Amino acid sequence: MAVDINCDMGESFGLYRMGDDEGIMPYVTQANVACGFHGSDPNHMRRTVELARRHGTKVGAHVSLPDLPGFGRREMKIDREEMANIILYQIGALKAFLDQAGLPLSHLKPHGALYGMAARQEPIAEAVADAAEVYRVPVMGLAGTLHETVYKRRKLDFVTEFFADLDYDDDGSLIITREHAAVDPDHAANRAVEAVRDGRVKSINGRELSIRAETICIHSDTPNAVEIAKAVHAAVIPLNAA
Amino acid sequence: MAVDINCDMGESFGLYRMGDDEGIMPYVTQANVACGFHGSDPNHMRRTVELARRHGTKVGAHVSLPDLPGFGRREMKIDREEMANIILYQIGALKAFLDQAGLPLSHLKPHGALYGMAARQEPIAEAVADAAEVYRVPVMGLAGTLHETVYKRRKLDFVTEFFADLDYDDDGSLIITREHAAVDPDHAANRAVEAVRDGRVKSINGRELSIRAETICIHSDTPNAVEIAKAVHAAVIPLNAA
Amino acid sequence: MAVDINCDMGESFGLYRMGDDEGIMPYVTQANVACGFHGSDPNHMRRTVELARRHGTKVGAHVSLPDLPGFGRREMKIDREEMANIILYQIGALKAFLDQAGLPLSHLKPHGALYGMAARQEPIAEAVADAAEVYRVPVMGLAGTLHETVYKRRKLDFVTEFFADLDYDDDGSLIITREHAAVDPDHAANRAVEAVRDGRVKSINGRELSIRAETICIHSDTPNAVEIAKAVHAAVIPLNAA
Amino acid sequence: MAVDINCDMGESFGLYRMGDDEGIMPYVTQANVACGFHGSDPNHMRRTVELARRHGTKVGAHVSLPDLPGFGRREMKIDREEMANIILYQIGALKAFLDQAGLPLSHLKPHGALYGMAARQEPIAEAVADAAEVYRVPVMGLAGTLHETVYKRRKLDFVTEFFADLDYDDDGSLIITREHAAVDPDHAANRAVEAVRDGRVKSINGRELSIRAETICIHSDTPNAVEIAKAVHAAVIPLNAA
Repeated sequence: MAVDINCDMGESFGLYRMGDDEGIMPYVTQANVACGFHGSDPNHMRRTVELARRHGTKVGAHVSLPDLPGFGRREMKIDREEMANIILYQIGALKAFLDQAGLPLSHLKPHGALYGMAARQEPIAEAVADAAEVYRVPVMGLAGTLHETVYKRRKLDFVTEFFADLDYDDDGSLIITREHAAVDPDHAANRAVEAVRDGRVKSINGRELSIRAETICIHSDTPNAVEIAKAVHAAVIPLNAA
Repeated sequence: MAVDINCDMGESFGLYRMGDDEGIMPYVTQANVACGFHGSDPNHMRRTVELARRHGTKVGAHVSLPDLPGFGRREMKIDREEMANIILYQIGALKAFLDQAGLPLSHLKPHGALYGMAARQEPIAEAVADAAEVYRVPVMGLAGTLHETVYKRRKLDFVTEFFADLDYDDDGSLIITREHAAVDPDHAANRAVEAVRDGRVKSINGRELSIRAETICIHSDTPNAVEIAKAVHAAVIPLNAA
Repeated sequence: MAVDINCDMGESFGLYRMGDDEGIMPYVTQANVACGFHGSDPNHMRRTVELARRHGTKVGAHVSLPDLPGFGRREMKIDREEMANIILYQIGALKAFLDQAGLPLSHLKPHGALYGMAARQEPIAEAVADAAEVYRVPVMGLAGTLHETVYKRRKLDFVTEFFADLDYDDDGSLIITREHAAVDPDHAANRAVEAVRDGRVKSINGRELSIRAETICIHSDTPNAVEIAKAVHAAVIPLNAA
Repeated sequence: MAVDINCDMGESFGLYRMGDDEGIMPYVTQANVACGFHGSDPNHMRRTVELARRHGTKVGAHVSLPDLPGFGRREMKIDREEMANIILYQIGALKAFLDQAGLPLSHLKPHGALYGMAARQEPIAEAVADAAEVYRVPVMGLAGTLHETVYKRRKLDFVTEFFADLDYDDDGSLIITREHAAVDPDHAANRAVEAVRDGRVKSINGRELSIRAETICIHSDTPNAVEIAKAVHAAVIPLNAA
């Protein structure tokens, strides 16, 4: 089974720019497109879908808590039904631009704080599943968390992702920061290869962790994201042919 | 051909209530559901779609300028492409709840200031058509305005509506106010019957205007909207059998 | 020392109405005016300040988490500095309308989820104090919580409030719901008198709690808020003369 | 009388960056600080006020239409009272951060579409004046437009500004674009000197226009804004000594 490279795309908002989508798009196979709740707006969504179409990149919905000022990185207390409705609204909004471009919805990925909440809070993971169920799309997430438990129990395709540009804690959890720092592209590529081929990654304290990697995640707001994407692409895609 | 009764529904927002949707839904055949840009939110959209489903009411997208504080009743200068994207976003968001409920998207109707802008500004009417084209849904509008000219030229179904609860100026244009006043239900019903059967309405100054009415519009935020809907329903639906 | 009656006012938003401010204003001595982050907008803020001025009611800032769709009743993870800035922004916005009306800022009161967070999370209570310090205004809160501990430590005036229209749990904590239910006005008035005169209230399970009440809080979005305000006013204000 | 250099500052929003405020601040004497309606948020407002304080730059309120997605560059139909309330809200919000920093409010400047609307629509110019009147602050604007007529009639200080980085049309009106293009710093500086010393500027078609310049405006979102500010500062400030 082929490994994918996914990246958070289309996070610009009005005149505000975030991420070099044009530079990154050629090196990813899955674009997680922001839906206006943490970043993006209808103009950027349309442009990003168009860009993905030109590059043959699959498009998924990158759904968020309703938190534009906080870029979706502030946790909120929200119940399952409201969360599911908020996610469904965003998927639908993105799907309109996919319908216009003649593209299918490829996958669903919760963004930022919602990603972390779904990993730890069952009602939130269920809410993600409630929304994913409407379109029966695969959901990306972290192996060994409620992402895996809940989505699989709900008979949804669960896609394990590996983070090439974030550090892992000793317990396998991700260290998520409000702004992403630059990382060495070769280091990221090596980690990705090790994760895909050997199922291993080193934690921030050097502990060896067992890992699965069906898709490699790259954040477009990491300062040198294009270099990371390029290096990871060059290192990982050849593994698919093997 | 049967005449419909349409009503702006699902305009509540969070804890704020607007319109007695439960009271009105039984008396309308088309619900124009707000999509979060002038009113509503994901929770209310889901509830309104559910309510429409239970009553067998057709559901269309009631799309707006991005203006929650102004309830979509403040005109904005916006170009065609941005307007089309904003409309498409809203249609998609609503469609997700329709997909969840297993309902088709029935129609498109611009709300408030957008309705008026599309009647008078060609790029805005084209933007409405650009969005409607993606789903090939009928668009409601005012006969004799750019609504009719543009949508028909674009080969979209154009549905002429008659406003039972608003006054017409001598030139046939609607008198749109930021808050709707109560109107006599029997008066509204009589006007609706005259419009459907005879193709006529009296302007605010008593001038007789020639009119077409394929669907009768009732605003849910008119204070006595339920009574108006009930009276119009009782008077107009029997005409369909004739 | 005289007891006050405070009420959450000015929570309407655009065309959406919340609370009968005109009906309640005559019966309260302190208006906690919403600042646009959970409810209200510049138009309603101005009108509410004007209404308070006409009735000689003192005006305080009713500040919230940034959560208009959730009416400020959804907790968010937010750090002290950001919280202080968000509160200060709101106080300033309200103060402009007070400056226009020639009125002083009387007090500060956190709204909804922020109120609860400040009672339990030290950085949030400190953030409230950080903002209050700029204008050295008294802060309303719950006795025996971090409200009291932190504000007093910061040498701010702490005003203990008693909730006439909410239930208390056995541990003295408030039972806060997203929508407020109607309560019997006489019951509320009797509880208020008991709280002011005797320093006592019965919990939801009938347990007797010791309480202090320097101001009685009435929520304007309780369905029969005017009746409650009237009854509490009639019962409590005479105690001041005693 | 000394000429000033003013610049639109503090227009970042959450994680989104706009303008190099740190780079520009040393070269301007007046910072027009965004108030959250077209850009900025409470965090950025506080930081920008602090930055201005450290550099001894005067701080004014850069107020906008309520249009974060459009960066305040889309005209909206809005009546005088609502516009005045919206402006006052923003001034107050900024003033809180000034009060915290111990700084006075220096001036008022309408942003983007509001600037243009106030130049041409009397009710909007009056609304600006209504808000400015509360604090009796000078208002920046374009000579020969309603800015001048209305503010002066209202006995407000009117500060004529010259735009070093925008083109003028033959009729003296500004050519405002949604995104600003880079301009040659020396060219901008020369134009500024000519405007201040000789009261002249060349229109986009080479026509010589008579102009007054009490303050030189530089936009922080022009790509090379720091260089422009530096060059204008070096050329213009010495004129004050002369």
